[in-house]
Amino acid sequence: MLIKDITVLNSNMEPLEHRNVVVKDGRFDSIGVDVVEKDPEMVIDGKNKLLMPGFYNTHCHVPMTLTRGLGEGLSLNDWLTKKMFPFEGNMTEEDCYYGALLGAMELMAGGCVSISDMYFHVQDIARALYDAGMKANICHGLSSSDPHERPESLKGWRNTVSLLNEYRDKKDGRIRIDMGLHAEYTSTDNLVQAVAAFAKEQGLTVHTHISETKKEHEECKLRHGGLTPVQYFYERGMFENPVLAAHCVWLEERDKEIMRERKATVSHCISSNLKLGSGVAPISSYLDEGIRVVVATDGAASNNNLNVMEEIHLASLAAKGAFLDPTLLPPQTVLEMATVNGAEAQGREDCGVIETGKKADFIILDLDKPHLIPKHDILANVVYSAQASDIYMTVIDGRVVYKEGEFLTIDRERVQYEADRRVKRICSQMQGM
Amino acid sequence: MLIKDITVLNSNMEPLEHRNVVVKDGRFDSIGVDVVEKDPEMVIDGKNKLLMPGFYNTHCHVPMTLTRGLGEGLSLNDWLTKKMFPFEGNMTEEDCYYGALLGAMELMAGGCVSISDMYFHVQDIARALYDAGMKANICHGLSSSDPHERPESLKGWRNTVSLLNEYRDKKDGRIRIDMGLHAEYTSTDNLVQAVAAFAKEQGLTVHTHISETKKEHEECKLRHGGLTPVQYFYERGMFENPVLAAHCVWLEERDKEIMRERKATVSHCISSNLKLGSGVAPISSYLDEGIRVVVATDGAASNNNLNVMEEIHLASLAAKGAFLDPTLLPPQTVLEMATVNGAEAQGREDCGVIETGKKADFIILDLDKPHLIPKHDILANVVYSAQASDIYMTVIDGRVVYKEGEFLTIDRERVQYEADRRVKRICSQMQGM
Repeated sequence: MLIKDITVLNSNMEPLEHRNVVVKDGRFDSIGVDVVEKDPEMVIDGKNKLLMPGFYNTHCHVPMTLTRGLGEGLSLNDWLTKKMFPFEGNMTEEDCYYGALLGAMELMAGGCVSISDMYFHVQDIARALYDAGMKANICHGLSSSDPHERPESLKGWRNTVSLLNEYRDKKDGRIRIDMGLHAEYTSTDNLVQAVAAFAKEQGLTVHTHISETKKEHEECKLRHGGLTPVQYFYERGMFENPVLAAHCVWLEERDKEIMRERKATVSHCISSNLKLGSGVAPISSYLDEGIRVVVATDGAASNNNLNVMEEIHLASLAAKGAFLDPTLLPPQTVLEMATVNGAEAQGREDCGVIETGKKADFIILDLDKPHLIPKHDILANVVYSAQASDIYMTVIDGRVVYKEGEFLTIDRERVQYEADRRVKRICSQMQGM
Repeated sequence: MLIKDITVLNSNMEPLEHRNVVVKDGRFDSIGVDVVEKDPEMVIDGKNKLLMPGFYNTHCHVPMTLTRGLGEGLSLNDWLTKKMFPFEGNMTEEDCYYGALLGAMELMAGGCVSISDMYFHVQDIARALYDAGMKANICHGLSSSDPHERPESLKGWRNTVSLLNEYRDKKDGRIRIDMGLHAEYTSTDNLVQAVAAFAKEQGLTVHTHISETKKEHEECKLRHGGLTPVQYFYERGMFENPVLAAHCVWLEERDKEIMRERKATVSHCISSNLKLGSGVAPISSYLDEGIRVVVATDGAASNNNLNVMEEIHLASLAAKGAFLDPTLLPPQTVLEMATVNGAEAQGREDCGVIETGKKADFIILDLDKPHLIPKHDILANVVYSAQASDIYMTVIDGRVVYKEGEFLTIDRERVQYEADRRVKRICSQMQGM
């Protein structure tokens, strides 16, 4: 593939004009003013376009697209017990497959190349995202309320082991497997310790929810002699592994020390945290203290979209507004959170920047739009003014998965039909319960 | 125009399926299941589409599109003195005309049918928006630092009078003229009283900025013996007129009483308030106390877009997140703020709802998108999941101004070229200063 005369955001997030970019064998082969390629299979005219890294969305529950808008306006307890749990209880493996494909379309059209996902029926989610051409870190969100339950006997545990056998170091590396622990408040000591030990033995990242709500955070301290979720997990050995911690709205000083020292990652889900009334995580202070912070959509049940461009925009605005400082989280910072830092948090060191030799995960934005004029500041235009719909194409490992409204790896109409049909079936099953 | 088999959001914001809608002579002629029209000039297939009111954007500085992204990351003082004031000082009347047309495209593509605008070179802004087919309430934001200056001698005052002569009760009523007072901190007693008296004599709304920042609010109290901006304006007679007050982030109890009793309107600019670090106006409490609250983008210098769908989404999320309550500002509330209530705040009683006999200001959303499936809750999908780019067409007084990416009243390429060219000229003039 040859992309001609395009503006490129380099690894320092500087826009370089009039570059030619050659993509070969899934990687950036060469990038420069005078670069040429004989007989390319595809030529893209880059005039008035911007080539930049795709987005790495580090916390998602992708099949929850099927629950988008379900039970809006209910109290949290009614929403969970009357709507979400009954709905999820009726979701089959194929429902999760189609829910994941529906989400994959929204993600790829929005420039997302990779997600870290936590859900159940994980085999089917992995298969959907692999089929869609995406990258994904898949995990089952393990939970247990029975202190005598053998963790290894949990269905999610067995599924994790079988995913490792199926995908680890296989199938071009797009699908990676994480160890998933739902959260402190849905775990036993036994489970937390087993997860920590298995992740260490296998060299896996642990993906979990931490201190999303004040209530959860305070109740943990009551349950565990004053230990916060971070401190409790730390005491149980979980931070001997790389930890990807979604939310982290209510971290305390000691929590931040642990996160920094153990090189853990905060996955910031600002839309979801706002919509559920959880609060605004002070991520600017986390960054100042040297903690890695990345960006995520969470699931469509609490967002209600999977649009990473909206997350970076909102992360930047919410920090400024909540902490009354317009200099917080400038465009470059949130763009790095959503690209190279997200890739690193997923254990993907070979992508996330536009650089010769790196895997070719990128998006092209069409800048020929009234709302992207003038061009005083391209990065500000991308973060504050652009919409996901300005994305002209999305490329993962050199493969075009989305271009000008068309999905090249997914039959859009079929998936939309299947999603609608399955939602109707599940809703009628819920009414019969 | 006949729109067939479409879902319509009625005046209670209920989605009614399978309706036919006939638009004739700029108004909704009939709406119903069995409605037909012989030989319509245009037929729209409404399958998988939603017809709803267009948006009334109640606080804008539309030519500031030309400053989008200018001086990002500077301190407020440097931004104003080194960038914005020199840039604006070099803006000609034609620059404002093209800046307004550039903004009109973004507004109309985003479903906005009407704005309340405050700027200078107001003749040219009125002409641009009239030419674009939009509705607009135009005002010059009067200011004065000289207590002896005769308000009537201000250029903006004279321009306001000439706008009244040109547009009042003329040219189909799309352009209305408001009295504009920039803010308390840029006014003299003399000016405030003259504006209040002239507005009363002429029966005009006063459009102003109130309590945007804590600093401005507190400094007003120091200047005026403890009176807040609302109280100071009240004492000077301004609230004897309808008042459209942008921002109102820091209102106190007595301010709220005055706003409610005087039937004034708060124009909530959440993106701008967040981006400039001004804070989150507690509009849910204003609504609870019976104050009318409407929605606005502010100008592109501090947003940096003119996308009302983003404002309603963000208004709803920010209220929930800042005040830790997920039940605040549900979809119906923010949709009413941006539609019927906005129209009323502009003094437009004949539009803002989809109802037979009302002026036909409406948008059609294309729901056949992965991110708008499933349809558990159409209003939630519109507010939380949809993007401005899901707008299929925008209609103002029965006239299609935007459809499927095309502008029917504006030469997009010419305006973009003119905007770019003029920005380059102004920037080179600034460097020469």
